[in-house]
Amino acid sequence: MITLYGSLDSGNCYKPRLLAAKLGLPFRHVEISSRDGSTRTDAFLARNPNGKVPLLELEDGRLLWESNAILLYMAEGTRFLPSDRYGRGVVHQWLFFEQYSHEPYVAVRRALVRYPERAAMATPERLAETLAGGNRALGVMETQLAKAPFIAGRSITVADIALFAYTQDAEYAGFDLGSYPAVTAWLDRVRADPGHVQLEWTPPEL
Amino acid sequence: MITLYGSLDSGNCYKPRLLAAKLGLPFRHVEISSRDGSTRTDAFLARNPNGKVPLLELEDGRLLWESNAILLYMAEGTRFLPSDRYGRGVVHQWLFFEQYSHEPYVAVRRALVRYPERAAMATPERLAETLAGGNRALGVMETQLAKAPFIAGRSITVADIALFAYTQDAEYAGFDLGSYPAVTAWLDRVRADPGHVQLEWTPPEL
Repeated sequence: MITLYGSLDSGNCYKPRLLAAKLGLPFRHVEISSRDGSTRTDAFLARNPNGKVPLLELEDGRLLWESNAILLYMAEGTRFLPSDRYGRGVVHQWLFFEQYSHEPYVAVRRALVRYPERAAMATPERLAETLAGGNRALGVMETQLAKAPFIAGRSITVADIALFAYTQDAEYAGFDLGSYPAVTAWLDRVRADPGHVQLEWTPPEL
Repeated sequence: MITLYGSLDSGNCYKPRLLAAKLGLPFRHVEISSRDGSTRTDAFLARNPNGKVPLLELEDGRLLWESNAILLYMAEGTRFLPSDRYGRGVVHQWLFFEQYSHEPYVAVRRALVRYPERAAMATPERLAETLAGGNRALGVMETQLAKAPFIAGRSITVADIALFAYTQDAEYAGFDLGSYPAVTAWLDRVRADPGHVQLEWTPPEL
């Protein structure tokens, strides 16, 4: 059985759990959080020198980190990854979009607004910058999802899993999803896909 | 023949040109820069809603964006992408590391320091933040490259192409590569790999 090291409140760590649920794939969860220093110990850094979760451990002990790399590994040979070269390319494109143009705004703003230990970093400039960047990313998704039911085309893929993780929490981060009807309808389509599980985290009240 | 839209001074746009050179793959280059608004026109946004280069156009007109997704597409079936599932997973891991933990610091600092139009954004806080983040990323690479000749193991892959693009310019961005001997030796190994071409850009004097 595979082991997923990560924290229950992280969207990045939720991605492989959500995919495992939809695939019916059993896994062991080990709680490790980047919020309490657990990912910066020597023991953890020996396993992921970048000091982040999620971290996947295979049955034979081999390790893999970076949430979207873990998704691609788990999805191989399943309905969540196209078998043709160009189709896979489009999935990769949206996975890199998620990590570069979406997560650093939507996910970072969620942490700034909702994690008490980040409050000191939530300057007006940082809040404005992450709001603008997140709205740009949601706008790009809106354009695409007005044309196709899923982000990479006709079928659900790991690109939907990756983008769903923090987009579902965008309201908690201070974004108004009412301005993005195609994104909102897509969130419901991903939820309706078989095997769906919710993120276990409930945000603290503001 | 494929077409690569991008600018000659961008490390992200250099990645697919470098891979094409090493593969001996002919391509057409069309100069489009994010520095003069060319990537924000309606015509360009219809081709990449995220308004960025590089953009790959296949012979049949199909499009693909995100530099590392383009690398993976071009590398399929070549010596730059392992054929086994776990080997590919490790390459993906380092490609996502490059976009999330390296490029936003090393590449962004290069632009802040060297592009005149970015000077107003080069605040002391932004310079300090990108210096610290870039040194963290170079430290992770140093740890890995002290153990293996290439970033994903024994052979060169697209993960080396991606990380080479801005690491080769790290000195221009204000990083001291003298502190990273394994990274410096790796830069020479990538340069020695057949078919290598240099980035066409020369930075303005400080």
